[in-house]
Amino acid sequence: MERHFDHDLEELKQRLLWMGSLAERAVHQAVHAVLDAEEHLAEVVLSEEDAINEMQIEIDERVQRLLATQQPMAADLRFLLAVSRINGDLERIGDQAVNIAQSATRILRHPQVKPYVDLPRMSELAEAMVRDSLNALVRGDQELAQSVLRRDDQVDRLRDQLFRELLTYMMEDSAQVFAAFELILVAKNLERIGDHATNIAEDVIYFVAGRDVRHPALDRR
Amino acid sequence: MERHFDHDLEELKQRLLWMGSLAERAVHQAVHAVLDAEEHLAEVVLSEEDAINEMQIEIDERVQRLLATQQPMAADLRFLLAVSRINGDLERIGDQAVNIAQSATRILRHPQVKPYVDLPRMSELAEAMVRDSLNALVRGDQELAQSVLRRDDQVDRLRDQLFRELLTYMMEDSAQVFAAFELILVAKNLERIGDHATNIAEDVIYFVAGRDVRHPALDRR
Repeated sequence: MERHFDHDLEELKQRLLWMGSLAERAVHQAVHAVLDAEEHLAEVVLSEEDAINEMQIEIDERVQRLLATQQPMAADLRFLLAVSRINGDLERIGDQAVNIAQSATRILRHPQVKPYVDLPRMSELAEAMVRDSLNALVRGDQELAQSVLRRDDQVDRLRDQLFRELLTYMMEDSAQVFAAFELILVAKNLERIGDHATNIAEDVIYFVAGRDVRHPALDRR
Repeated sequence: MERHFDHDLEELKQRLLWMGSLAERAVHQAVHAVLDAEEHLAEVVLSEEDAINEMQIEIDERVQRLLATQQPMAADLRFLLAVSRINGDLERIGDQAVNIAQSATRILRHPQVKPYVDLPRMSELAEAMVRDSLNALVRGDQELAQSVLRRDDQVDRLRDQLFRELLTYMMEDSAQVFAAFELILVAKNLERIGDHATNIAEDVIYFVAGRDVRHPALDRR
């Protein structure tokens, strides 16, 4: 029985990672629809949204079934609760990719705003956070999860810098207002993707170490 | 034993509702810091953030303990999983209130943008969605939960209308760019609050009816 449960848990993890790879790819394609003016990439993202949503429901059903039939304790229980939360974060990362893809189709109707300021760097950072939060899950690697938490501030700083530049464009030239506004929305979406990666990393630490590292300001031990 | 568990579940629900009332109040105060130029309300919101974060951790610990010790089945299991997810949504509603409070302190340093367009209506709608999603939980009221789901589109439409007006102000008068930009951020936060209320309503339906109503486009039964 125990061995069969281990097999179920491993299968669940594989499904979650598969969902993670779908979400990761959606973000990458959506951002490149903007950066490389490739509208067809935006369409791919929109057409694959359902696959991510189906995975979310499938994974939640697996978690519920395992909780009901296996009465897991300690680390197994923490793992299932962490999977349930990570699942929600991955689905929302998929939503953010869809938002970016929709922005892409609107942006491509306007002349390009100067160069795309720091958007490429911000998107690389956010994508790497998602990737590493999932790698941390695979390897049970707390150090890697911690490094994801540290990178969230970098994303927020880039976002602030990007906002300043885009607002300057808007003030200098009112013809830029629409396109710059869309880039502000894209930056907001990337910020949220970084937030979700942070949540995932926190859940990895909770699962691996049994410690709740959310809200460090509370200084709980 | 069973009766003691019922008592534990009731207590958990009361704690979740208490957390909901903190989150609701934070949103209300943050929005009124903007609308009524009341900076002290923004400070109240910032000072109460920790209380919401502490509640989130306490509630998750209760859920984990009940799952580990009571091996709940069927409706009780669904209830605990729903509480775990609603807990995350309430904490994020609190985060959005903090963002709005921070915008308020920045907005108050600039001259006011015309009237505040449709922000009051949008915030009333979003606040009512949060309140009713929690009322639906209290009463196990599926109809009320469904009405929350229907209102999400209204919030999104108001957001789009608000964006159009604010962008027009920006184009007409570059001195308005900063203040209008902050109002765009506030509208984004209200949109997310509506999204979280929608998630809560979906979880109420999942708990009450045992049906997963997320992603209706998938057309599952």
